[in-house]
Amino acid sequence: MNIEQKNHNNTSENFEVLDNFERFDQKNDVFRRSWWDKKIRSKKTELFYATYREPLKTWRKADGFTQKDYALRNAAWHVSDILTEINAGQDRREGFSDAFTIQTPIAENKINLGTEREASNEIKKIALAFGAELVGITKYDSRWEYSSKFSDLSLKSYPPEIPENLNNVIVVALPMDYELVKTVPSALSGSATGLGYSHDALTVLSLTQYIRNLGYEAIGSMNDTSLAIPYAIQAGLGEYGRNGLLITKKYGPRVRLGKIYTDLPLNHDKPIQFGVKKFCNICNICAKECPVKAIPYGAPSEISYNQSNIIGVRKWSVDGEKCFSFWTAQNSDCSICIRVCPYNKDYSKRINRIGLKLSGTWLRHLLLWLDVKLGFGKRQKSSNWWKKI
Amino acid sequence: MNIEQKNHNNTSENFEVLDNFERFDQKNDVFRRSWWDKKIRSKKTELFYATYREPLKTWRKADGFTQKDYALRNAAWHVSDILTEINAGQDRREGFSDAFTIQTPIAENKINLGTEREASNEIKKIALAFGAELVGITKYDSRWEYSSKFSDLSLKSYPPEIPENLNNVIVVALPMDYELVKTVPSALSGSATGLGYSHDALTVLSLTQYIRNLGYEAIGSMNDTSLAIPYAIQAGLGEYGRNGLLITKKYGPRVRLGKIYTDLPLNHDKPIQFGVKKFCNICNICAKECPVKAIPYGAPSEISYNQSNIIGVRKWSVDGEKCFSFWTAQNSDCSICIRVCPYNKDYSKRINRIGLKLSGTWLRHLLLWLDVKLGFGKRQKSSNWWKKI
Repeated sequence: MNIEQKNHNNTSENFEVLDNFERFDQKNDVFRRSWWDKKIRSKKTELFYATYREPLKTWRKADGFTQKDYALRNAAWHVSDILTEINAGQDRREGFSDAFTIQTPIAENKINLGTEREASNEIKKIALAFGAELVGITKYDSRWEYSSKFSDLSLKSYPPEIPENLNNVIVVALPMDYELVKTVPSALSGSATGLGYSHDALTVLSLTQYIRNLGYEAIGSMNDTSLAIPYAIQAGLGEYGRNGLLITKKYGPRVRLGKIYTDLPLNHDKPIQFGVKKFCNICNICAKECPVKAIPYGAPSEISYNQSNIIGVRKWSVDGEKCFSFWTAQNSDCSICIRVCPYNKDYSKRINRIGLKLSGTWLRHLLLWLDVKLGFGKRQKSSNWWKKI
Repeated sequence: MNIEQKNHNNTSENFEVLDNFERFDQKNDVFRRSWWDKKIRSKKTELFYATYREPLKTWRKADGFTQKDYALRNAAWHVSDILTEINAGQDRREGFSDAFTIQTPIAENKINLGTEREASNEIKKIALAFGAELVGITKYDSRWEYSSKFSDLSLKSYPPEIPENLNNVIVVALPMDYELVKTVPSALSGSATGLGYSHDALTVLSLTQYIRNLGYEAIGSMNDTSLAIPYAIQAGLGEYGRNGLLITKKYGPRVRLGKIYTDLPLNHDKPIQFGVKKFCNICNICAKECPVKAIPYGAPSEISYNQSNIIGVRKWSVDGEKCFSFWTAQNSDCSICIRVCPYNKDYSKRINRIGLKLSGTWLRHLLLWLDVKLGFGKRQKSSNWWKKI
């Protein structure tokens, strides 16, 4: 292996692509499997999905799972749902398992945005104006494209649809509400997820349309269609955490991602490191707190629990089967590994920004001790959220 | 006229409903007339609308009207466009000239939200969580419903579609970007309008869906379907200004409105007054600066310039024909009367909040003099906006 290849493969110290790497088939994603794989699909998974659209016949009485909690969650998802379902008749889930095609044609005349650096700066600022809170740019990387895509609706496979000539990928991140995430696990907290997606759709569709209106090809999607986290890491948005999620500096793991592929000439960002590997090495809180033990202890590894893990990538990977089994058991999405993560803080507060800096130094042991001592990451009652609003 | 009627009619000192009041036919709205009335419709109005969707063949070179300016404007409108056009096949413009019907069914079980006051408090907080910046509640008022509605697509009239039993109206306001509005008139500044609508759609659709998920009927729309400003005034969001627009305390006239009709029992807000009438009486800046002199000098009156004015309401009313003629002449929406209004300030700054308080006192002459002296409301070059971002 020559040096260039080595640099290419070692994206960061806790994310390494190995020689036996294989592209991932979307069909093996645990969400897709929940539609076609008898090992996953059950009455419970069917109910899990149904209650995002139709009210439960008998509401649960448990805190965070009442009619009101579901009412808010499903309302928060509503705009995302309208947009993703708009071409269901063509076997598409726009912006989710398929890219968004609900754009108007590309302008004939191409606008010159100056140097690649100037163009990148401008596109990033427009992304922020359209609602993104973080934005980075990297190159198209076929490794993070699915080997083939899969429809939940028809249970058919299709060839991937992002053309390789769209050689730049703009990755955006939108935060989820901190106070709602505190109530995880709850149907209520799914409102943070839903609102994240609804705003994500607005940002991605608008930015994609802007680039098309400038005369360049652009195709957008939310956090599916391809593997969003490796793209986000390569675009400098953060690092892999033990919970298998992107850890950002500004919101920790509390983000939703979106991607825009384009042939607009753009400058690329570099991956960042701010101590996540060393911190996750000593932390293990997410692994301890996961009720179904889907998160690994120990060092990043290339372990494959089942077909829902990508082959040939050394990183912290979760067991998707175990993870999703808890989602369906409680009848809403779970984000305990986001709630308990010491990086899940309100970084608009200076004290937390100082903590973040120190977590990247030898003081990380003290920081971790303080985090537990001060009760960060503790579950808040959903009924208290309703009282406080 | 008994006292109750009098209170009902005198909504505020600069907004009075007279005995000869007649409900407004949506067909007479100047935007609707631009489709059916030969006096308004022309090659120019057709081009005006077409360029919101399709690129101009030859871009204007003028500052604020280049391809890039239109690119951003149309991208900002994109999500609003997708949603409003979703049922065009059924002769509907969802959320604009027609109410939104893109909601899921009402839950069978009605949730009790406590007293009307408690319910109102909760709904207002959820409205804010869904992106509204201002929210107020008033009662259904048939005077602000169109006598009949009109389709731009088929040029047909239809009976109004909001049932009277939806006796409460929640009015939300979302601000438009201050820096973009500074560049008015420009195609660029239309991005503030477009983003305002796209976010408005998200807020209205989500809040409407939330109420439906609680088991109550709810129908939402953006700032058409009925007369939004009188509803907003009755819901305590602000006062009528000389420019015929709603003047709010937090954003002045720089807002987009949305409405949700519901039978959820709610408490009503009261109209507010913070000195707008007296200030507009001495100001006249919008009347002076309007290039087509569509804004009146003098006191509020019941003048009807043409069929686009409502009959029997004493207020400051603009001449819609003149106003819209400027929109089409420059090929983008105009908001000069928003940009130059002394109430169009960045009220996140303390100094401007102090100014707002003083504008409601005898110091208003000084405030107005200062406003002109300090150059507030001056047009900024669009090219400078692009440089600054």
